[in-house]
Amino acid sequence: MKLCRYGAPGAEKPGMIDADGRIRDLSNYLADIDARTLAPETLATLAGVDPAALSLVADGVRYGPPVAGTRQFVAIGLNYADHAAEANLPVPAEPVVFSKWVSCIGGPNDPVTIPQGSEKSDWEVELGVVIGTAASYVSEADALRHVAGYCVVNDVSERQWQLERGPTWDKGKGFPGFGPVGPWLVTADEVGDPQALRLWLDVNGERQQDGSTATMIFSVAQIIAYLSQIMTLLPGDIVTTGTPPGVGMGQKPSPRFLKDGDVVTLGIDGLGQQRQTFVAAPVA
Amino acid sequence: MKLCRYGAPGAEKPGMIDADGRIRDLSNYLADIDARTLAPETLATLAGVDPAALSLVADGVRYGPPVAGTRQFVAIGLNYADHAAEANLPVPAEPVVFSKWVSCIGGPNDPVTIPQGSEKSDWEVELGVVIGTAASYVSEADALRHVAGYCVVNDVSERQWQLERGPTWDKGKGFPGFGPVGPWLVTADEVGDPQALRLWLDVNGERQQDGSTATMIFSVAQIIAYLSQIMTLLPGDIVTTGTPPGVGMGQKPSPRFLKDGDVVTLGIDGLGQQRQTFVAAPVA
Repeated sequence: MKLCRYGAPGAEKPGMIDADGRIRDLSNYLADIDARTLAPETLATLAGVDPAALSLVADGVRYGPPVAGTRQFVAIGLNYADHAAEANLPVPAEPVVFSKWVSCIGGPNDPVTIPQGSEKSDWEVELGVVIGTAASYVSEADALRHVAGYCVVNDVSERQWQLERGPTWDKGKGFPGFGPVGPWLVTADEVGDPQALRLWLDVNGERQQDGSTATMIFSVAQIIAYLSQIMTLLPGDIVTTGTPPGVGMGQKPSPRFLKDGDVVTLGIDGLGQQRQTFVAAPVA
Repeated sequence: MKLCRYGAPGAEKPGMIDADGRIRDLSNYLADIDARTLAPETLATLAGVDPAALSLVADGVRYGPPVAGTRQFVAIGLNYADHAAEANLPVPAEPVVFSKWVSCIGGPNDPVTIPQGSEKSDWEVELGVVIGTAASYVSEADALRHVAGYCVVNDVSERQWQLERGPTWDKGKGFPGFGPVGPWLVTADEVGDPQALRLWLDVNGERQQDGSTATMIFSVAQIIAYLSQIMTLLPGDIVTTGTPPGVGMGQKPSPRFLKDGDVVTLGIDGLGQQRQTFVAAPVA
């Protein structure tokens, strides 16, 4: 099952994707796709809905992020060995954890503003994990039971703020628009093995990242179990699980960063695609 | 005006503190104290309410955190020069920013569980700033207009997870219960100058921290302006602004950390007091 939210920012409605990839209106079944909707019982009820019986939504409508009201947007760094190498950072012995401010969450195709003064805005295609039930001290074996589904995330990153402005990474990860999520939340049953998904990213049509979740250092189950030791994961939370090689920071002979007008497209097998135009901030 | 939330966890009701320090029930005026309540118009309406005309709440009721639905709990590190020295870290040239997971927020007097395996749980009395209106790219001169009020925060910290488990601090700051907030949200008009508040913390009745917000490196206005460059601050967000000297990690000749049964009391002039009993985690 593929769930989505569509319409103007802040006024999205719930939708379901039909067999032809079109949006069907779920408003008669639930008010929104949020922490409550992601409970297993609610998802089970929705699984019985025939998309073909729902009203068709007009083509071209905006996709919003597929979950409303996310309270924690947790990110894992350096989770692909090759990416750690390109970033000149050691392969971590345990997951690197940082925060993306939830105010950065945007729709998958919304334009992204390059922050004022930024010269090092970069891309990172990532597998996003949407939490369905609260998780605290869960084992690796039980971890995936807490996952409602998966989605595409672009972990947009400002490298100067991330790496040169103090001891934590959080400054460079949560600018407005730096968290495109979606287009869909694909339920875990439909995704199957989260460690067998191809993920890719293009800038202006040129392939930059082309990887597979098979090469993650820490699996989704290991990440959820690990995080559940240090925090309580809540329904509707999004955990984004690190990026494969090919980010702008790692380009040879010199890094490449995003500039006004660049178009970034990215996708993950079965989870859909995103497309963002990067735009310079208005002059202050 | 002093606002609070009282009752069982997850079922708190809104309250107002009367001239004698007792809780009065605000339920007839609003459903909860949250992002909407903190808008200047709503606060202005509440300011016209006479607490003496509201129902008195029975003594001894639990205080919850004074704001519901906080989406971003942003923390500033090393913001008092003397504390940076005791932590053996340089005085920062710009604010150090990290995240406390919102799932760590608790009432001011709730017991705090020492995480499984933790040997370095520590205390930090801090001035918390509650955001009233969204802030993006605001100037230092305008920053305080976005503040609804102030509160006491204990930025409970697990030093091993904060400092020895990877490049970011976020792992050690957001365990369940590590964010006691309250008892009250005191509106900005009643607090006056946020840079002239005494703050203190005792462990088992012995004074450990005794400072003043006058010695902050970066003022509240500077912090809000700075954060508004890297994120959008949202109504209901809490910014906690760093701690004065006297944390356990900095004790001489050897550090002191919290153990089962320790009682931490803390307070800030005009903002009330907190009292937490620290308890060992149940054996896994």
